[in-house]
Amino acid sequence: MAIIECVPNVSEGRRTDVVEALVQAIRRVPGVRLLDHSSDSAHHRSVITMAGEAAPLKAAVLALFEAAVPAIDLRTHSGEHPRLGAVDVVPFIPIEGATLDECVTLAKETGADVARRFQVPVFLYEEASTNPTRKNLEDIRRGEFEGLAAKMSKPEWAPDYGPPAPHPSAGASVIGARMPLIAYNINLATDRLDVVKKIAAAIRYSSGGFRYVKAMGIALEDRGIVQVSMNLTNYEKTPIFRVFEAVKREAERYGVTILESEIVGLVPAAALVGTAEHVLQLSSFTGNQILENRLREIT
Amino acid sequence: MAIIECVPNVSEGRRTDVVEALVQAIRRVPGVRLLDHSSDSAHHRSVITMAGEAAPLKAAVLALFEAAVPAIDLRTHSGEHPRLGAVDVVPFIPIEGATLDECVTLAKETGADVARRFQVPVFLYEEASTNPTRKNLEDIRRGEFEGLAAKMSKPEWAPDYGPPAPHPSAGASVIGARMPLIAYNINLATDRLDVVKKIAAAIRYSSGGFRYVKAMGIALEDRGIVQVSMNLTNYEKTPIFRVFEAVKREAERYGVTILESEIVGLVPAAALVGTAEHVLQLSSFTGNQILENRLREIT
Repeated sequence: MAIIECVPNVSEGRRTDVVEALVQAIRRVPGVRLLDHSSDSAHHRSVITMAGEAAPLKAAVLALFEAAVPAIDLRTHSGEHPRLGAVDVVPFIPIEGATLDECVTLAKETGADVARRFQVPVFLYEEASTNPTRKNLEDIRRGEFEGLAAKMSKPEWAPDYGPPAPHPSAGASVIGARMPLIAYNINLATDRLDVVKKIAAAIRYSSGGFRYVKAMGIALEDRGIVQVSMNLTNYEKTPIFRVFEAVKREAERYGVTILESEIVGLVPAAALVGTAEHVLQLSSFTGNQILENRLREIT
Repeated sequence: MAIIECVPNVSEGRRTDVVEALVQAIRRVPGVRLLDHSSDSAHHRSVITMAGEAAPLKAAVLALFEAAVPAIDLRTHSGEHPRLGAVDVVPFIPIEGATLDECVTLAKETGADVARRFQVPVFLYEEASTNPTRKNLEDIRRGEFEGLAAKMSKPEWAPDYGPPAPHPSAGASVIGARMPLIAYNINLATDRLDVVKKIAAAIRYSSGGFRYVKAMGIALEDRGIVQVSMNLTNYEKTPIFRVFEAVKREAERYGVTILESEIVGLVPAAALVGTAEHVLQLSSFTGNQILENRLREIT
């Protein structure tokens, strides 16, 4: 059984009855597990986390649009968080027994259905993007709902699916696929902020480091130490252990050692199993050898 | 939900109808998943692998005894494998969400019920053992069914449960709890058998090494290399990575490097996650942070 995660962000964080109606629409879809939902009043935004196989998730996203499009009007919406549409962003994330490619397919099929059924233009992003200049969410969302009509009048901003102009009240939606994010921090046994900033710069993509690492160096002042604070955006292509080793080697350059590292929040088991495979130099190991996976198969 | 594995060994490996009846008796118990069963004619023995929570597993073991005791007569049984009884050995093994202590309790409760219902004496072994001289299966089984009556006449061989003499046809049973075994091999980039034998001796319990390591050094002649062939009998107390590092350091002593390692068969996820925690110096990591575990909780 495949497990895909889907985390729609919707532009409603204040009217609890509306949020509850959206959540109920998802709850009614068989085969979808609602894992979490949280609303932020200042952002005027809610984040819904759900999981399931591809078909039920697509049905749940369509049910969400069906409830959200008539209920949310971007023309009177204002909050701190940037947004383009009523259902603003919908990422599909492979967790277990599903590939990123399958999530790309799911994003495209869902996007096409959303555009057709609700007349909402859809931009594909991240791995589902069909255009390198429209890969990053920030680039697609720049100008927000208020600037969207002007932006979409340019040929390079024709949507992937749906009408060539914003939906009057529901704007546009950004739908795509990405790997799970891992929030990973490495604490150094020093208080030298200059050192940690150099290390963060050495390993992050934006300044020449690993492709799937975002990093910054910060001080943990209460502890008198510094931290390389990271997001690992694709643990298959830039594995945790390679990042750890690189930070360790860079720190040695300054006579500094790693005190500890920490994973904030959730991590896919495969990211840790991959670390073990690497350091134990395991040959020909497969996920089928993990006892729990076998037990679950036979259920 | 806890997952415990139970692997009864029964003294019947030739009459397929009898083996099938035993397996059917287990299949009828709700909440128990039959994972595997295999019979060896030369050994005249079958191994059944099942998993579930404590209560259904206990019911399945009782159902197995109910079917096996009338069907298997040790007085006319002869095979290559040593054995004491019809249902010879029953280990309970914690896999997920269950502790070794819980499996000890389960072994004792099951043993008491078996003895009471079937008048079969039960010896507790491994972690469930109540007596250091009766911890190893080999010690308990020495003398086999044929020597059992004489052995049990000695006060130190009074059973943990049940009558002080063997069941006439079903002998005695050995019931206990142990950690999952990990079959783990490390291949060295050398053909020097003398070196690998020294390394195996350095790390195994029996010659002064780690408490939960059985190891021998062997040649893989077709590949022109040697292997430290191991069983890790408690990956929590003697973790894989510590063994790997020790073998690596011992090998360096002889100018030899590790070529690769391999896990044969199944491994609990926690054994590999533990390796990652160790090498990444993870602080305050818990199994609740593994995404798949969270997803399953919410099912």
